[in-house]
Amino acid sequence: MTDLSAVRAALKSQRIETPSWAYGNSGTRFKVFRQEGVPRDPYEKLDDAAQVHAATGVAPVVALHIPWDRVDDYAALRAYAEDRGLTLGAINSNVFQDDDYKLGSVTNPDPAVRRKALGHLLDCVDIMDATGSRDLKLWFSDGTNYPGQDDIAARQDRLAEALEAVYRRLGDDQRMLLEYKLFEPAFYTTDVPDWGTSYAHCLKLGPKAQVVVDTGHHAPGTNIEFIVAFLLREAKLGGFDFNSRFYADDDLMVGAADPFQLFRIMHEVVRGGGLRPETGVAFMLDQCHNIEAKIPAIIRSVMNVQEATAKALLVDADALAAAQSAGDVLEANAVLMDAYNTDVRPLLASVREELGLHPDPMAAYRASGWQQQITTGRVGGEQAGWGA
Amino acid sequence: MTDLSAVRAALKSQRIETPSWAYGNSGTRFKVFRQEGVPRDPYEKLDDAAQVHAATGVAPVVALHIPWDRVDDYAALRAYAEDRGLTLGAINSNVFQDDDYKLGSVTNPDPAVRRKALGHLLDCVDIMDATGSRDLKLWFSDGTNYPGQDDIAARQDRLAEALEAVYRRLGDDQRMLLEYKLFEPAFYTTDVPDWGTSYAHCLKLGPKAQVVVDTGHHAPGTNIEFIVAFLLREAKLGGFDFNSRFYADDDLMVGAADPFQLFRIMHEVVRGGGLRPETGVAFMLDQCHNIEAKIPAIIRSVMNVQEATAKALLVDADALAAAQSAGDVLEANAVLMDAYNTDVRPLLASVREELGLHPDPMAAYRASGWQQQITTGRVGGEQAGWGA
Amino acid sequence: MTDLSAVRAALKSQRIETPSWAYGNSGTRFKVFRQEGVPRDPYEKLDDAAQVHAATGVAPVVALHIPWDRVDDYAALRAYAEDRGLTLGAINSNVFQDDDYKLGSVTNPDPAVRRKALGHLLDCVDIMDATGSRDLKLWFSDGTNYPGQDDIAARQDRLAEALEAVYRRLGDDQRMLLEYKLFEPAFYTTDVPDWGTSYAHCLKLGPKAQVVVDTGHHAPGTNIEFIVAFLLREAKLGGFDFNSRFYADDDLMVGAADPFQLFRIMHEVVRGGGLRPETGVAFMLDQCHNIEAKIPAIIRSVMNVQEATAKALLVDADALAAAQSAGDVLEANAVLMDAYNTDVRPLLASVREELGLHPDPMAAYRASGWQQQITTGRVGGEQAGWGA
Amino acid sequence: MTDLSAVRAALKSQRIETPSWAYGNSGTRFKVFRQEGVPRDPYEKLDDAAQVHAATGVAPVVALHIPWDRVDDYAALRAYAEDRGLTLGAINSNVFQDDDYKLGSVTNPDPAVRRKALGHLLDCVDIMDATGSRDLKLWFSDGTNYPGQDDIAARQDRLAEALEAVYRRLGDDQRMLLEYKLFEPAFYTTDVPDWGTSYAHCLKLGPKAQVVVDTGHHAPGTNIEFIVAFLLREAKLGGFDFNSRFYADDDLMVGAADPFQLFRIMHEVVRGGGLRPETGVAFMLDQCHNIEAKIPAIIRSVMNVQEATAKALLVDADALAAAQSAGDVLEANAVLMDAYNTDVRPLLASVREELGLHPDPMAAYRASGWQQQITTGRVGGEQAGWGA
Repeated sequence: MTDLSAVRAALKSQRIETPSWAYGNSGTRFKVFRQEGVPRDPYEKLDDAAQVHAATGVAPVVALHIPWDRVDDYAALRAYAEDRGLTLGAINSNVFQDDDYKLGSVTNPDPAVRRKALGHLLDCVDIMDATGSRDLKLWFSDGTNYPGQDDIAARQDRLAEALEAVYRRLGDDQRMLLEYKLFEPAFYTTDVPDWGTSYAHCLKLGPKAQVVVDTGHHAPGTNIEFIVAFLLREAKLGGFDFNSRFYADDDLMVGAADPFQLFRIMHEVVRGGGLRPETGVAFMLDQCHNIEAKIPAIIRSVMNVQEATAKALLVDADALAAAQSAGDVLEANAVLMDAYNTDVRPLLASVREELGLHPDPMAAYRASGWQQQITTGRVGGEQAGWGA
Repeated sequence: MTDLSAVRAALKSQRIETPSWAYGNSGTRFKVFRQEGVPRDPYEKLDDAAQVHAATGVAPVVALHIPWDRVDDYAALRAYAEDRGLTLGAINSNVFQDDDYKLGSVTNPDPAVRRKALGHLLDCVDIMDATGSRDLKLWFSDGTNYPGQDDIAARQDRLAEALEAVYRRLGDDQRMLLEYKLFEPAFYTTDVPDWGTSYAHCLKLGPKAQVVVDTGHHAPGTNIEFIVAFLLREAKLGGFDFNSRFYADDDLMVGAADPFQLFRIMHEVVRGGGLRPETGVAFMLDQCHNIEAKIPAIIRSVMNVQEATAKALLVDADALAAAQSAGDVLEANAVLMDAYNTDVRPLLASVREELGLHPDPMAAYRASGWQQQITTGRVGGEQAGWGA
Repeated sequence: MTDLSAVRAALKSQRIETPSWAYGNSGTRFKVFRQEGVPRDPYEKLDDAAQVHAATGVAPVVALHIPWDRVDDYAALRAYAEDRGLTLGAINSNVFQDDDYKLGSVTNPDPAVRRKALGHLLDCVDIMDATGSRDLKLWFSDGTNYPGQDDIAARQDRLAEALEAVYRRLGDDQRMLLEYKLFEPAFYTTDVPDWGTSYAHCLKLGPKAQVVVDTGHHAPGTNIEFIVAFLLREAKLGGFDFNSRFYADDDLMVGAADPFQLFRIMHEVVRGGGLRPETGVAFMLDQCHNIEAKIPAIIRSVMNVQEATAKALLVDADALAAAQSAGDVLEANAVLMDAYNTDVRPLLASVREELGLHPDPMAAYRASGWQQQITTGRVGGEQAGWGA
Repeated sequence: MTDLSAVRAALKSQRIETPSWAYGNSGTRFKVFRQEGVPRDPYEKLDDAAQVHAATGVAPVVALHIPWDRVDDYAALRAYAEDRGLTLGAINSNVFQDDDYKLGSVTNPDPAVRRKALGHLLDCVDIMDATGSRDLKLWFSDGTNYPGQDDIAARQDRLAEALEAVYRRLGDDQRMLLEYKLFEPAFYTTDVPDWGTSYAHCLKLGPKAQVVVDTGHHAPGTNIEFIVAFLLREAKLGGFDFNSRFYADDDLMVGAADPFQLFRIMHEVVRGGGLRPETGVAFMLDQCHNIEAKIPAIIRSVMNVQEATAKALLVDADALAAAQSAGDVLEANAVLMDAYNTDVRPLLASVREELGLHPDPMAAYRASGWQQQITTGRVGGEQAGWGA
């Protein structure tokens, strides 16, 4: 039997980190559609994030992206966040948007470019010191487009060298999360294409280096929950970049494309102890709201993670274990599906009410008037986006 | 036995159409890297295309993209092209870059947007009249990102209505080529996602509507040469948008990712009579040279198509048919592979010399001094790209 | 607002066809695991199917596979079925298991093999006359393993010729359902690889030829509900072969791998009118229960189809249409998800009770004692499987 | 400049291991087509393998599969092989064909089944002692078909325990090669689904455990040569199971589906030193000749590996390195393609002649009369296949 009070407690303590860039504009290579009311600077992004947290109660952490969120005074930014009940989360480095990085950053054949890229990564750790961030999230777009373009193994050597230098710079309470991605923007090889590559590097670096799983970064057919279970067993799961996809790295709202997969992932997280704060698994969103309203989309995404988590918590672990060890395929599957098929929205509504929140975050946001406020108030200036 | 003089004749008469936009800048959603010497307007694009034709002798046709190649006087543009030994090819419509098109163009739920999109398509036919172009190439980015976002069947109704209106506007010698694409920029549904959808619409429209096969627009594992063979058998293959891909719509140089697939495609083209000019199959490139030098990349791409064509022409059709009808699997495969494994570069070099060309187009281009000329000459102004 | 009495009525009238072969043994190329109590002949398969219908109330139709279900007297088999409240459904032809079919059946380069295959197909129509079956389901394993092995276009000619001959033989109330499949057992080309190919042939044949969608027969990333919507709009959707898959044609229980996809498919069915009996859409299962108990797995599968159907029926069509035409992406998605997230098990339980059934079909079956009866009773003899 | 004498020497010293089971019958779950002249026992398989070696000169090693190649006296089998100029290669264990293994072998929830499976693996090492085999090749079909069916992490624990026990049993000159596979026959999870999982286990086990790369065992879009380069850099590449595929684990002749991929793989092998015998990289075939004649198919496969190797050896390493470090994308790609586009068949013919062989192995085999001899001679008895 599932202990409902433990379920409620777990749902109350889960923290979901939202990304500053999801509040800004984004798009595809074909077009970035602008939306009304989009923030013009990191402070306004934090204002929006505060609304998400106000509506959901579980999203107090905001990840930054450097240089998109570059400010003169990170201590001031941190104070601004804290004034709004927020903390600053992972620092996401960007070594893919300068012209120098056309053929790679830390794996570039040109040592000068490599030095520049490494310098940026080290700067990001400086920023972490100022923001109080725990995690440095490293995603490298590095790779090649054509067979022969560069030496695959040599690029691994260069990558290892840069990672080692960054690792040494980390403080005692800081971590390095190494993301992997199958492809895009590189189209032939990617230097960290899969979890195995990330894992192998993290293993050599040490305990402060961990793998981050972006749910949109896999080859078709990849069983993501297997990877989650494997990394948790190895104590190498640093966290998630949640989003969903039908085809490639679509960066849709998490849970929108395959809610059952999200549930299976959260089931492995629960099973492997990853919900316990001490394991340090970060539940981050990394999404692009190209055509839908951004703040409501982020609220919906937070709710989708919560619903998947609630269902995973409702799995009757004893019944499941019993069916599994008896080799009863249909019964074991049925135990899992019973939790998945449960409508957990009433449970989450009541958890929210216990937290003093509106039971329906979407309605709470609509009622807040914030959307009208930013639509009318944020005129002029340069809307935030991936470019800046 | 293969008739080598017929092979040479076929190679001399093949025409490969290059796209104006490949001479401009392009990139991914992450970054567009600028290159030196990139053209600033359609005239300079034609100058570059003339270099490709000068080096290869088989690329006299240049496709335009509206509005990226919008000019005040299309007759003047046509004359400019003809002065350089070029003709203007397919007019590519663009109904994806205005803010109005966020939720679709001809399939948009808003009738005003649909009217605007249709107006653009009809304008493109006007332009065809002026440029003497035979083909209107229609690619629709229309689709949805989220389940439920719009009504799939209703969007087909809207699509059919727009296609019908454009079809009626076509002149006697004009065609409509309907492209399909699995995904991107739409991530849940695409309104023309596969050849079957395009074929079904073209069938209803009539003989001037044909399917265009972009080699990068299929689901993983799709057998493209089957589609080519099927459409040729149905007289519904209008042409190709050639490029190559490892993952999604990577738009790499054709032949760079899977030269054997390109050969198999050309084998079906030859088998189905598609090389004969009267079948009207257009051999177009549609590529993005994000990190490599553009003009040389296009020359290489033209050469890759030629090499695949040459190998396909070398297939011993009688021996192949004999092995096939005998059910000799290994021998039939060996006949095909024998052609594929042949190094056709000497053959193509001699064909070029017979045409009065340098045997090596890459060397010819290097020797021309054009690259230095544009690098130093094209300073200032706005480089051409997808945005304009 | 959704009309709940209409939902209940629709759920009561839906009919799900179970396949005779799912009651027998099946497996992979690596191993067929035998299970206790498996039927030894078509009569015992019908006995098992009767149990599924007894437990669910919506599965009175049983599809046959010839020659696996070959009997001397089909009228007697029909009477046997009717005595148990069953009717005989689609006749599934088999032209892939004789040694002659190594290189294909109706598309074989050898005309003698083609004649033999066509003869079998015509025999199947004779059987339909005797069993009262409406549908001839045609799946061809025909294809090639190696490039060059056979002529792709010529095989289409042969296929068209065979289909035409079968079509002419059909009675007024008989249909031909043409299945497509991406690959397996052929590994290079398949002669009917996608819906477009099936559709094109059916269109030429006439109204009695329709496409059947096997949910496991697509390339990765294919949007199946788009195909369903498209075919319904064209009145060319003959029915489904339901199953589920994570990778290829896994033939798992329908709804087990991606229940959200199944819901989306059923949403398009409801939207396109496909639930109305007069449209003739057949809801068939085509599954392999390699490791799980077969009868309970089929009951579970029937329930999964019912649950997806119930959720699809609960979609608030008016609210959805309003949000769609307003271009409100998030709201439209939310309307759809609201139905999906509903726990429809209580609704289905009450529908079953109204039909005089046990609210829980799995419990009903367990309580029936049938599994013990067949386990102890069916000893000796040759268990049914794909081979016979 | 490439040193042609070194190329010739490398081609002469390469050894390609053929699998005993490829000489027997195989098929798909739909049908196993029998062929004339197929061996009835391991001795006859060795006779056939001797023909492959006679024709090619580079295939003196034959892998065995236990229990398919079970004999009473392995020393006698070894002597039989050596009399024919052959040696016995990798011992392939089989823990997937007993009824006990329905829910797994070493990862089965039932400890008794796990003990049985481990016993078989240890028996295989005993056989290695007798046959003089260096390599134990471990492929586990273990996995689950349905979410919830078993505990993913617990299965990893069980797997690790079994591997550890086998590892301890290995002799000083013996290795354990751990294969991975995305799916099939398990359809939801596979316990060793990717190279990362295999690598992680091998790393913990020690230097005698290495990863084996089956070229058909990856998710769509996986860059196999990246994995090869990565594992070589880590000294963890034990060898290859070569075959080719268009879709899943098609097990077609290596080089038949994507010869350019095979070349890229061999380029990484050459680049990483994997052709040097001391690195121990085993070049094994693992194929199914379902519809084509088996011995000629294996000869062709050996030739395909040789041709890819020859092309890889012809890559001008200095020119490549220069272009790569200059960041000249097109030139680096051109250097690689220049080698690929070379017709290496004349080079290989002359290498064969220097070895005293017929320049064309296919012609040599046809001329040998062996096929007629086995067709007429091998009558009666039970043809070898996967079942026995």
